[in-house]
Amino acid sequence: MGEQLPNRWWGWGTPRRPQELPSAARELLRERLGVEQPAAPAVDPEAIEVPEPEPLPEAIAAAVGDEQVRTGRIARLRHAAGKSYPDLIRMRDGAPEALADGVVSPANSAELAAVLEACARERVAVIPFGGGTSVVGGVTPLRGEHGRAISLDLGRMRAVEVDPLSLVARLGPGLPGPEAERRLRERGFVLGHYPQSFERATIGGFAATRSAGQASSGYGRFDSLVTAVSMVAPAGRLSTRETPHSAAGPALRELVLGSEGVLGVIDEVAVRVRPVPASRRYEGWMAPSFAEGMQTFRRLAQADALPDVLRLSDESETSVSTAISGIGKAARAAFDTYLKLRRRHHGCLMICGWEGEPERVASRAAATARMLRRDGAIALGGAPGRSWLHGRYRGPYLRDLLIDAGAMVETLETAHSWTRLSELYAAVGGAIGAAMETQGTPGLVLCHVSHVYRDGASLYFTWICAARQGAEIEQWRAIKSAACEAIVGAEGTITHHHAVGTDHSPYMKAEISELGVEALRALKGRLDPAGVMNPGKLLPPG
Amino acid sequence: MGEQLPNRWWGWGTPRRPQELPSAARELLRERLGVEQPAAPAVDPEAIEVPEPEPLPEAIAAAVGDEQVRTGRIARLRHAAGKSYPDLIRMRDGAPEALADGVVSPANSAELAAVLEACARERVAVIPFGGGTSVVGGVTPLRGEHGRAISLDLGRMRAVEVDPLSLVARLGPGLPGPEAERRLRERGFVLGHYPQSFERATIGGFAATRSAGQASSGYGRFDSLVTAVSMVAPAGRLSTRETPHSAAGPALRELVLGSEGVLGVIDEVAVRVRPVPASRRYEGWMAPSFAEGMQTFRRLAQADALPDVLRLSDESETSVSTAISGIGKAARAAFDTYLKLRRRHHGCLMICGWEGEPERVASRAAATARMLRRDGAIALGGAPGRSWLHGRYRGPYLRDLLIDAGAMVETLETAHSWTRLSELYAAVGGAIGAAMETQGTPGLVLCHVSHVYRDGASLYFTWICAARQGAEIEQWRAIKSAACEAIVGAEGTITHHHAVGTDHSPYMKAEISELGVEALRALKGRLDPAGVMNPGKLLPPG
Repeated sequence: MGEQLPNRWWGWGTPRRPQELPSAARELLRERLGVEQPAAPAVDPEAIEVPEPEPLPEAIAAAVGDEQVRTGRIARLRHAAGKSYPDLIRMRDGAPEALADGVVSPANSAELAAVLEACARERVAVIPFGGGTSVVGGVTPLRGEHGRAISLDLGRMRAVEVDPLSLVARLGPGLPGPEAERRLRERGFVLGHYPQSFERATIGGFAATRSAGQASSGYGRFDSLVTAVSMVAPAGRLSTRETPHSAAGPALRELVLGSEGVLGVIDEVAVRVRPVPASRRYEGWMAPSFAEGMQTFRRLAQADALPDVLRLSDESETSVSTAISGIGKAARAAFDTYLKLRRRHHGCLMICGWEGEPERVASRAAATARMLRRDGAIALGGAPGRSWLHGRYRGPYLRDLLIDAGAMVETLETAHSWTRLSELYAAVGGAIGAAMETQGTPGLVLCHVSHVYRDGASLYFTWICAARQGAEIEQWRAIKSAACEAIVGAEGTITHHHAVGTDHSPYMKAEISELGVEALRALKGRLDPAGVMNPGKLLPPG
Repeated sequence: MGEQLPNRWWGWGTPRRPQELPSAARELLRERLGVEQPAAPAVDPEAIEVPEPEPLPEAIAAAVGDEQVRTGRIARLRHAAGKSYPDLIRMRDGAPEALADGVVSPANSAELAAVLEACARERVAVIPFGGGTSVVGGVTPLRGEHGRAISLDLGRMRAVEVDPLSLVARLGPGLPGPEAERRLRERGFVLGHYPQSFERATIGGFAATRSAGQASSGYGRFDSLVTAVSMVAPAGRLSTRETPHSAAGPALRELVLGSEGVLGVIDEVAVRVRPVPASRRYEGWMAPSFAEGMQTFRRLAQADALPDVLRLSDESETSVSTAISGIGKAARAAFDTYLKLRRRHHGCLMICGWEGEPERVASRAAATARMLRRDGAIALGGAPGRSWLHGRYRGPYLRDLLIDAGAMVETLETAHSWTRLSELYAAVGGAIGAAMETQGTPGLVLCHVSHVYRDGASLYFTWICAARQGAEIEQWRAIKSAACEAIVGAEGTITHHHAVGTDHSPYMKAEISELGVEALRALKGRLDPAGVMNPGKLLPPG
């Protein structure tokens, strides 16, 4: 029996709750966005025309064993795309942008090195694949100028080794988030890295894309947790010392982090871990407005009084998310009470979370509460916090349902200094809104702040509108481009934590200057002289 | 009237207190180290043979103005070396390792770019020079394969621009530490970066060498304060976005930081600043032993209870530093009382400092005190803390006096995970001690921990022995090499905050792997194709 595809194989996958859209969401789609027509059902994968794979060099099978080179249609379809909106649409339509000729799974660094060597020699493109959750085109098996391509599945490289005195763990790149967390917890530790993709994404992907998690204000972004990395490139191995810090020249660790598979394959990451928190506390709060909530977050950060998790939804997201994604009945009741008491139509939902020793959690929460109250925020109690925690990974499942219903839903994120954050917020939100109008599909723009620093914060945008059925990709591209141009115009970063892939590569010159791009090309030229590593990603075309 | 050289021009400079060695120090040199013979006096600079400079391309003077190209003997001597022990010995002897053909001082980035362009075209080596305080050979005007060299003095590029909302300051590379601090304080902010070289070192140097300051546990290492950088290279300008964070590929900011002038010249650094602390509190403590003190520091770091400044001297440093550098009478009395009370011969001095809001300083100090007491440390009160603070920049002045007296004194630093820190301590201390013996000059090895992280800490070694007069450089090289080999053998970092320069470049392959070195060479090849930027530094020979 061969591999099988799960339900909703084209999307995030078999849905957990909600199995279907809440009625309020269906109503919102119909009444606010004019979404009447559900999307055409996803094609039967058996009906997808999958061309015969090109034969791969024998040296690859010699390196990993015959059974670790899979060339069947299901394996190739499962590695054909990430989880961006265009990926999902293409897969639903049975029209993947690209297919690898085989899926290759090395068991260890030596096998990995042998595979890369063979691919460089034989000019076979190599697309590293962890959890396949890229939302920027990072794992699409583009082959560039090469005649053949493999998807390099790292799923067998899942080592965990803990140094309990230094609080450092060495992790294999193929470890999925939940497995890494479980195996660390068995030893008494946590990584504290919980991006929305947590259930499927992998350690190597977190490192290669500079992932940020929902608790990154407290635990640190993934890149800030990394103390050392090792990477196998076609030209050899690059590794950095496992010491807490060094002044020995440019930090090559920071070159490997974010390299998105275009320089080589990360085969080990040493990360700082923490003891399992003894307690956690999550609360909902309501800020008078988004602008005022942002100022409060700035003050918290600059007073070193940040919770470990904090989020602030803008007015739109607050009202929509209570309706469609469901923050829980208790939260909605508290929210309604708040609005009534204040005779207001608006308010902005904040989620604050603390983890650690109970005493410290209590004193930190109290300190934050004082500052929140001083700034006019109102406590909604623990229910919205727990509800958020419970639903923290639900977004991508919900997206599948919205697409089924006939909507387009997409997210993107950026960041800026406090001084320019409001300008960025207005520019990007305005650009997305205008682009949806231009497409004839006026829609909603939602935004929240989810990562807060002393000098600035991230903005995470969601847009929802009716999908132009049959023309979704062009529609998406027009809106996405408008958003990206607005980000570049306001000098924000093109991505705070989704990485570059194919979608953001045209904006890299603006991001790191033309010479910065040239510097990366020079690096790639040395580490991957045959240019087989993940063609078409990260670096701008041409 | 031309430029004049100050007293002690060959060393750190005109001494502040002490003007001469304390008698206890003289006694220690004589009785413990057999130092009898003072060093020969430094040569009269007028007697130094300074060869005629090679004529420089006219385009350089055209870029900066005639008066900003100085070719006089004093200017060239002042830019002939940094402040390493071998630098000082060579300058005392009137035998600088190298001299530039001129000292060039651009006023701004445009002039800087024009100078680099001219130098690349005409093949003139460029050695960036900030405060000239490198202790690893970083500013020696080596010309490599080129016939001419300039020392590029950044002293005119001293802009300060503050964003008080985002708490970010844009600083020019030529700003000396005290001027940066004074101009930020006028606006209500501090950088909090206080390396021992503070009085002379510059912002550009802090960035180019990944400097760490005495308060880096609290304020952060210099590299962690930087939010964006701009660099002018012969091939153009490389700049990064001024946003709090980004996932847009490898962090090029981290390539510019630590680049030591071999890729280009940093012309602006955006750094996170903090409000001027309302209060500060410094205390002395005594740990039962170095090993136990290190464990205490680890527990403090891992409990997020670190003071902003903390240092722990080993047994040797504790006893010697109370004698020779003077921690103050009150501290010495407390120390003696402690030893008597405990009927001990040993104990290890700790300095702890907190800065910020008075309430917070008090509560943090109390939390630290609880942990210190639990681990058997004894409070010595505020006097040793204040004394340390008062003398924090005294070390380099003292070094001049020790050299005058006939001693060799040198420092080096490394870092490792907690798990391997004791192994590193024993290996490096043992190697230095044995090498001094082999040189026929048995001496003292002192060590302290000064930078503490969750996953490890730095070790800062000082060695003192009799100088083999006339053969100091060979003697130094033998001992230094032994120390470096021991660091590499224990897989520590070759430098925690002194950078690479010429002295550590042979160990870069061990530090970042052979392919890492090749990656840096590829970068340099693209940014500085003519190879004029700071030849002979950072990258290993060959």
